[in-house]
Order: sequence, then structure tokens, then C-alpha cells
Amino acid sequence: MSDGKYENIMEIAKNRGFIWPSFELYGGAAGFYDLGPLGSSLKDKILQEWRQFYVNKEGCLEIDSPNIFPEEVLKASGHVDHFTDVMIECSECGETYEVTDLVKEMTGRDIEGWEKEDMEELINENNIGCPKCGGSLENIHDFNTMFRTAIGPKGGRTAYLRPETAQTIFVDFNRLQRLARRKLPFGVAQIGRGYRNEISPRKGIIRLREFSMAEVEVFFDPENPGHPKFERVKDEPMRLWTAEAQKRGDEEYIEVTAEDAVERDLIINELLSYHMAFAKRFLLSVGIPEDVIRLREQVSGERAHYSKETWDLEVLTEDFGWVEVAGLAYRTDYDLSQHSEFSKTDLTVYYQEEGEEEGRKILPHVVEPSFGVDRVLYCVMEHSFIQTDDGEYFKFNRELAPVEAYVFPLIDGDGLPEESREILQTMRDEGIFAKYDESGSIGRRYARADEIGTPYCITIDHQTLEDSTVTIRDRDSTNQVRVKVEELPEKIEDLLDGKIQFEESGESV
Amino acid sequence: MSDGKYENIMEIAKNRGFIWPSFELYGGAAGFYDLGPLGSSLKDKILQEWRQFYVNKEGCLEIDSPNIFPEEVLKASGHVDHFTDVMIECSECGETYEVTDLVKEMTGRDIEGWEKEDMEELINENNIGCPKCGGSLENIHDFNTMFRTAIGPKGGRTAYLRPETAQTIFVDFNRLQRLARRKLPFGVAQIGRGYRNEISPRKGIIRLREFSMAEVEVFFDPENPGHPKFERVKDEPMRLWTAEAQKRGDEEYIEVTAEDAVERDLIINELLSYHMAFAKRFLLSVGIPEDVIRLREQVSGERAHYSKETWDLEVLTEDFGWVEVAGLAYRTDYDLSQHSEFSKTDLTVYYQEEGEEEGRKILPHVVEPSFGVDRVLYCVMEHSFIQTDDGEYFKFNRELAPVEAYVFPLIDGDGLPEESREILQTMRDEGIFAKYDESGSIGRRYARADEIGTPYCITIDHQTLEDSTVTIRDRDSTNQVRVKVEELPEKIEDLLDGKIQFEESGESV
Repeated sequence: MSDGKYENIMEIAKNRGFIWPSFELYGGAAGFYDLGPLGSSLKDKILQEWRQFYVNKEGCLEIDSPNIFPEEVLKASGHVDHFTDVMIECSECGETYEVTDLVKEMTGRDIEGWEKEDMEELINENNIGCPKCGGSLENIHDFNTMFRTAIGPKGGRTAYLRPETAQTIFVDFNRLQRLARRKLPFGVAQIGRGYRNEISPRKGIIRLREFSMAEVEVFFDPENPGHPKFERVKDEPMRLWTAEAQKRGDEEYIEVTAEDAVERDLIINELLSYHMAFAKRFLLSVGIPEDVIRLREQVSGERAHYSKETWDLEVLTEDFGWVEVAGLAYRTDYDLSQHSEFSKTDLTVYYQEEGEEEGRKILPHVVEPSFGVDRVLYCVMEHSFIQTDDGEYFKFNRELAPVEAYVFPLIDGDGLPEESREILQTMRDEGIFAKYDESGSIGRRYARADEIGTPYCITIDHQTLEDSTVTIRDRDSTNQVRVKVEELPEKIEDLLDGKIQFEESGESV
Repeated sequence: MSDGKYENIMEIAKNRGFIWPSFELYGGAAGFYDLGPLGSSLKDKILQEWRQFYVNKEGCLEIDSPNIFPEEVLKASGHVDHFTDVMIECSECGETYEVTDLVKEMTGRDIEGWEKEDMEELINENNIGCPKCGGSLENIHDFNTMFRTAIGPKGGRTAYLRPETAQTIFVDFNRLQRLARRKLPFGVAQIGRGYRNEISPRKGIIRLREFSMAEVEVFFDPENPGHPKFERVKDEPMRLWTAEAQKRGDEEYIEVTAEDAVERDLIINELLSYHMAFAKRFLLSVGIPEDVIRLREQVSGERAHYSKETWDLEVLTEDFGWVEVAGLAYRTDYDLSQHSEFSKTDLTVYYQEEGEEEGRKILPHVVEPSFGVDRVLYCVMEHSFIQTDDGEYFKFNRELAPVEAYVFPLIDGDGLPEESREILQTMRDEGIFAKYDESGSIGRRYARADEIGTPYCITIDHQTLEDSTVTIRDRDSTNQVRVKVEELPEKIEDLLDGKIQFEESGESV
């Protein structure tokens, strides 16, 4: 990790209360971060937008299930056997390393998906020793990266913290398909924590041991892999980096619409293409620019055990290069078929397509858009981060700004702080996320509000006491208007919703 | 658990997709429940209202931190030593029991807080055997009810799933007090999962092993335990059941305002009284009626190890009696003092009150409102549940209704389904949580929508095709109005927000 933009952003993030390492009081714990008040608000707003996309617009059913899974579920899903990383240990100091990360760091080579024997050979050939003490590395083996626990007393029932939220959606499939009235395709969404007991996490908030996920499982008839609303996204341009190009060693992208990608067989079916375009639109809507987004097809060695075709939705960052913020996986009927076998339960659907005379019993296939919420959050921060001669600040989309409005008394006296606090409370009671600041010059207070991306600052001055009006200042134009106090909450709400333009919101100052 | 209202509600809850037992496919796991699409939406809306109360109106800082805690944190907090239940085992069949639950069930006596020796004596005296096989009970001992895990490879660092969200707020105190600019009092909120590895959970969603919490820690100067906004709640009536009355054996409540409760020394200070009244108002706002709410003071034996005075905010239910949905605990400086000692870090604040000449170094005290979200959810369901001759339904507050509007084509043909789907999509794109139903008579569809508390049903009929108008039906009055399609989303939004009355929203039908 270089000492670049990431460090710069994280420094502000810590001081202003976006993000900081967890358990600092006890020396910290690698792979765990807290979201402070601003980070928590930003995350909440990103998730609200995600729900608007997947639950409201797309009509997915949303569920909310436990983080603790009994072992049987993860036996069936394959995670007990396959959710592993390859680990190696130093014979001198005992430090442990995840082998693909280590080799990448030391040689630049990507060996994900290799056999352990080949990895070992490469390490020996390249004389890779312990980066910490130089000791020799030994005991290469698979390490299951699930956190293990037990339910109940006396040893209990073996359980794990879920490696993905997806599995309860498969386990609940029979209830869910009844709720969806046996129509296909239908999607089920879930937001929640996921856990991965990384051997040695080293990438700050990009590689966490506990993270927030937002996942959707779309169940469909493999003989009809279309999407009824494909029309809505078919012209969305996508920048694809195919597995074939990667194998050739070409960093050559294909620029193509969602529709053409299917026609040219670049993407396996219309449903997957729909969700790739839809996921990309979500990123645009939270302020990630078009030109730092690409869709990279996973090559055969790196795909998860359940996947037939997977595309990573990636965002370019300054310090980590292209970061996967979502995976779009074609999981086939792998999961339903495994759970059906392990639980000895029929999970087929009797499905009759409109216009067809007879129905068929089918085991639906699955396309999964799966977002890493913390990574989206970081990418939103990096791509909203503006550095100018006047200072550094986050230019968040208005709807995402963690603090919606700041309230300032012009001076600390003459009853202005009291008046300001009353106005603050009225705005808060109306549901506006507003903060109060009375320390330092107005200029310093504007700068502090700007730094965290606050779109509107409200100043209470002596005129307020005379005619009950206040000024609103717009972050982006720095223009100011004067409005009546009684109209203030509604104006701010309408400005945040984009219902009115700033200039028409009051009298120009 | 009797076969009463709870079973009745849970039956509908399962069928319609509010709540069902987790991992049913694998025989279930006691103490774990999933929220289906309706339950998840209802929970989200309850939490939005909670945020409006505590984060917006009250101005608390909200944070979001990991579920996994390294052991040191919980050593310091006292949970490793004190977060225990008393367990006893059957010498024949090996079944395990939580002793206070077992004794309550078998004798009706409440022995919470008793010494283990006294419990054992009582069991022997009353000849209590294993309820399952009649075998004798033995090996009474403390069982720590935290879920244990480990971070990292090779045995790792001992860790637990958090028993409460509160602890990261204490661990982060130094960062948080800087963000609050060293002003007192200030509150910090956190919403997230909590875990308790119950010995043998038996009360459905009232006693979970994994649950959702919404907690606030309010830090204050013990010499000035007032609340700057006490004025706003001082007249709130509260029904108190004091520890003294309980010790006397009286089920006698004191009806008193928040202000009088402090003046009469019934509540230890103004800040705690403020938060008791505020928490009660939150319950009212999500539809729990005044007359099923009480505040019960915990008696000395049942208080947690950190508490000096605790009031349980309780709601009366038909099958579980009075259920604690929130605890209002005066935690003193216990937590900050413990973390300060264990981490060898100074956690005092240099605090200068307005008007005072000199500041003081103080270790703030804490008042904690802590909500069990799943219990609030259940109580909202029970107290919204209406049984009439026409059927059973949930009369949720409009703002809480999990589905905001249903869209129906009058008949399945003549282009009405297509038109309906277009209107549905427009409403969804505008952020309304709307569903579609085309099966059965309109009467049946109204009934299904009513059952889950949907406030508005929109019907598309032949007139729609002619003049682009639809009908809206109001759940509570069953009145209908006709409105223009283009005005529909805004009308529904305004109706949900209570900005317009139903009768004035369109032309009466």
C-alpha cells in the first residue's frame, strides 16, 4: 500500500469520523474497521439507494436472516470443503501468509487457482522467504477461512459465521417461491454482514474480516434466461474485459451495449447482462464516474466452486488499482441442487409459462449480483474526493451527503446561538440530518462543512431576529439565498430531493 | 407458551412472509428466526423511526462496528466473568436447562439473582426433576452465554460475538468525545446484532440467540445530570412500578409525569427520566397503545453487573405477559473506568461548563436506552392485529406498513394487466414500495392486502384506458377516490406522509 490518496483520505476519515480501525484502545485487530457518525450515515444512504434499485425498482423480495449458520448448511453449500485460502508458515518466527498474496507481492505474479504443489515449487524456485525475518517458509496447506463457533451448551452444535448472505436465500427457497407465486424470474435481496477469517489482511478497508454485503439471488428458468425489463437497460454501454483477452495477456476492453453483449455471445445470457448493466447503473447513481468502471470476466482458475461464469464489477482506485466492488455470478442450479440433495427435500418448482399449455418441474438457475458495501463506500469516498488549492473536500452527491445541512450563528452572542439551536431543532424534528457549529470564523465553518461534503449551510444573523429570514449557502456554487425560517425545512428537503434548483429557492444575496 | 394470539400471529407471519424459523430445511435451530419480505420491511421502517428519534431529533452520533470482539474488550467490560446463566443437567438424558427459567416454569417462583447454593436447595426441596425424562438434575454451574470464536489462523486470538453493541462505543470513547467537541451530555447510537448463546431458548422470537439491538450511550457529568431539552418531555405521563412496590409484593403502579418522577426521587436523575419518557414516546409513535406500556424498576438481584438503577420499558402481550422491549440503565462510570484501567488509557474529559471559570477532569457517567428490535417488532405486530368477523388483519400505522400500495387490474384481460404493470413500475421508480396482484376477485385481493396492513389499493379498470384515471381505496375507511395516473405517485406519497387526507386526495367514488 503506497502512501498516496488512500492514506490521505483515511486521515480525514479518521479525524472527521468516517472510518477508523476497530479496538484501537486494545492495539487494534487487523481486518476490522468502525464506521463513525459520517461513515455510518454515508453507508446508510448508499444502502437506501441500493434498496431503491433492487427492492423498489426491481421488485426483489428482501429478507433478513442470522449471521450464525449451523454447519449442515455450509456442508451442503460446499463452503466447509472449499472456502479456503492457501497458507504457508515461517519456520523461524511462525508468521503466517496467504500464498497468492505473498507471491503477488514478491514477484508480481498472479497464481490464484494454482495447485498447491505448483505454488510450492514457485516459492522454492524464486527463493521466497519470510518477508519479516527471512526464515524459510514451510507447511503449505489449505486454511478454511470461516469463523467457527458453536450453538448451545456442552460443546454445542458446530456453526460458522456466514461467508455470504446468499445461503439463507437458498435454504428459504421453498417459502420464497411461494411468496413469489411460483413466477420466474424472481429476485431475493439481503443486506447484512459477511465474514472471512483472512490469514493476514493487509489492505485496510479493501480486505476486511467482517464486512457488509448486499446480495441478490435471481431465480430463473434456464430455458428462458431473459429479463422482462431488458428493454430498460439494453442500450447501457459496458466496458468488458473478457477472460479470453486476459488469457491472451491483452488489457483490451470491448465497449458494447448490454444488448450487443448478448448478441455477440460475450455474456452467457440476457439475464446476466441485464444485471451487469443494472449494477453498473447503481454505481453511477452513487457518484462513481463512468470512466473508472469496468466489468472483468473471471478466468477459470479464480471462479468460486459454484460458478459457471462470473464478471467482477471493478472500480479503478489510485492505490489498489482495479477493485472488485461487486461480483455478477452465474451460479447455475448448484446451490439449490446441493441443498436439495443434502436436506433430502424437493426444491423444484412446477412452472407454467404464460401461453404454454403444460407446466414443467424445474430446478431454477441463479444469477447473483453481490456487492461489497464497504468497498463501494470507499470508492464513493475516493471518487468524491477533490483536492484544490483551497483545500481538500468530498463532493458527495447531494442525496448521499452524510450531513445534510449545517446551522451557524453568525456570532457567538446577541441571542443568535439560541435562535440557531431552535432552528436546528425544528429542522431535525422534520427529519433533516442537521448539525450545529459555532466555533471559529464563518469562513472556517464553511470550510469544515465543505470538507465532509455538506451541501447546505444555514447562517443565522441579526437580520434573522428582525424579519425571521436566514441565508442558505450552496456548497458547489458558494452562492447564497435568503429564505423565511418557516419555509426552511421544506426548502432544504426539496433541494436535497432535487425538486427545486438552488437559485430559485430564495432571494439571491 | 399457550396456543393463543402468538401462535395465531406467527401462523400468518409465516404464510405471508413476516417471520419464520431459520434453517427449516435442516430441522431448524432454536433461537434463530428469519425476517421475510414483510418482516424485513417492517423492521426497516421501525428502525427508520428509531433513527428519526435518536439520531435526527436527539442528535446522537451513530456508529457501526464489528460483531466480533477480541477477548480483551470483554474481559474489561466484565462479560467474560459475568455474562453467565446458571445451568443444570439431567443425569439421565443429558438435557440442559437454564435454572431460573426451569424453576419459574415448575413452581412459578422468580429466583433471578439468587446464589447457586440456594437454587440447588430449592430444586431439591421441591423435587424438581428433568421435565423431559424425569431424571435427576445435577451439576449446577455458571455457563457463559457468549458465542466464542477466534480471529486468524493457528488457533488465533480468542474472540466473541458481541453480547451488546454498547462496548465499541466505550472503546471508541476518546474519538467520540472529540467529535462531540468535549461537550456534555452527548449521546452515541448504534444499531446492529447482539448475540446470547441461550442454554435452551423456548419463547419464540421473544428469546433469541441472535437479535437486533438499537442502543444509545449518553455520556454526562455526574454533577450535572440534567438534560437541556427536558422541557420537551417533562409532562409525559409514565406508569412506574418501583422496586419498592415489587419487594412489598404490590402490583401497584405510580402514575406520574417525567418531571414529578424526578422531584419525588422515584427516578435517580433528570437525564434518566428524560430518556424513559423519550423511549416511551418512541413506542407510542410505532403504534403501541399507552395502556399496555409500563416502566418497571429492576430489583437489586436482577440488575446487570454494571448498573446502579435500571428501568425496563415493558409492553403487555397476551401470551408472554409483560415483555421487556427496552432497558433504561444507569451504568455509572463503570464501563469507562474498566476500559481505562484495562487499556491503561486516560478516558477522562477536560470539561468546562458554560459560565464556569475553570474546567474539571471528569470521567463521564452513562445512561443507556437499549432496545430489543425483534421484540418491538413483535409487539407492534401484536398490537396492530385486529380480529373481526370479516377476518384478521394488521392495522399498522400508515408509515410502518410493509407494503405501501397494491396495484390490481380489475380483470385479467383487455390490456388491464399490462397497463397495471406500467403504473406499478412508475410508482416503484418513484420510491413507493408497491406490489402487484392479479389473482382472484377484487374482494379477495382487497382482503389479502388488508391482512398485511396495506394502506392503499389501486385498481386499474376500463375507464383507466379511456381517461387515464384509477381508483385508490383506503384500508381504514374502505372509501374510494378516483385520481389521474400522472398524479398517482405523488398522491400516494403525500397520503403516506400524512400531508393530505384521503377524502381530499381525489374525486369520491
